[in-house]
Amino acid sequence: MADHNALPLVILAEKFASLPGIGMKTAQRLAYHVMSMNTNEVEEFSKALVDAKKNVRCCSVCQNLTERNICPICSDAERKANIICVVESPKDVTAFERTKEYGGLYHVLHGLISPMDNITPDKLRIRELLSRVQQGGVDEVIMATNPTVEGDATALYIAGLLKPIGIKVSRLAFGLPVGAMLEYADEVTLFKALENRNII
Amino acid sequence: MADHNALPLVILAEKFASLPGIGMKTAQRLAYHVMSMNTNEVEEFSKALVDAKKNVRCCSVCQNLTERNICPICSDAERKANIICVVESPKDVTAFERTKEYGGLYHVLHGLISPMDNITPDKLRIRELLSRVQQGGVDEVIMATNPTVEGDATALYIAGLLKPIGIKVSRLAFGLPVGAMLEYADEVTLFKALENRNII
Repeated sequence: MADHNALPLVILAEKFASLPGIGMKTAQRLAYHVMSMNTNEVEEFSKALVDAKKNVRCCSVCQNLTERNICPICSDAERKANIICVVESPKDVTAFERTKEYGGLYHVLHGLISPMDNITPDKLRIRELLSRVQQGGVDEVIMATNPTVEGDATALYIAGLLKPIGIKVSRLAFGLPVGAMLEYADEVTLFKALENRNII
Repeated sequence: MADHNALPLVILAEKFASLPGIGMKTAQRLAYHVMSMNTNEVEEFSKALVDAKKNVRCCSVCQNLTERNICPICSDAERKANIICVVESPKDVTAFERTKEYGGLYHVLHGLISPMDNITPDKLRIRELLSRVQQGGVDEVIMATNPTVEGDATALYIAGLLKPIGIKVSRLAFGLPVGAMLEYADEVTLFKALENRNII
């Protein structure tokens, strides 16, 4: 924003622009929009930011974000406690819960191993996963990280730690997305779909 | 967000989703991003929201947003005070200032006449424009509202009020955007470009 703009507006636009996926133009538009909101709404927004940061922490069991000590999923007695689905981030838990088909527990790593970005295994919640498994009662760990270089490397690394304990470790199936067109599938996906073909 | 998500996170996502152009999926991603910011950054963001709303008001002359009583443009003695460019919103002022070619003053309407949305002329800053013009010293008013139904209607309405006072009222030129391809121009733009052709 140019010199003629009010400083508090410039600062607000910069804050919006610091969020992922929001460029400077959109940030300016959002800052102007805030000016058109009434004072009450702005104060509620401001409070929601601080509240979320202050009151939300990691579940002491699965490391998912929650406002309690143990999250609703981990404290739900009806869920199968012998199966743990390991994901990169809290939004992956939301994605699995949307399917309404998975009845086990989760473990959120809060990242993937990526030496290039200086993210080594000790920066993820792998230690917490190992201690959960070592407490017993776990039959299977599903590695549900993304099918990327980092996701695959993290899945293999954790599998290498869990197998000596005698735990079954599985990986999500990769193949054609449902509803996709063969001609638009990339080579690797098509190869995976062929390799993992099922008898009908 | 589903039941398993922490309530403060759901509230924060809803606040983000209430901003223009931000859907629920993006809002969730932004809420998760806030969790990964440090407490200091979140507090600064929260403060920037309230600060902008509290400290930024309308310039008592041109109605543009500013933290002072009279904005830097209106108080700049080097700008031509006899020419006023009338725009819909503060971001239009920023657009004109970017051209670095306009040396006059502005007047921000904070909207356009739109009876369908219940925006009647008395809800815009038209009264303030009239009193500026009636104080004298203004030779020309440029109507720089968007070339839309509402923009044209507002320009005509204000022109009708100013002409009896004996003020020259002009409208921005409409035609092909610089760098555009003829074949992709819509019919109305092309017609305007033909109608307003210049001798070379």
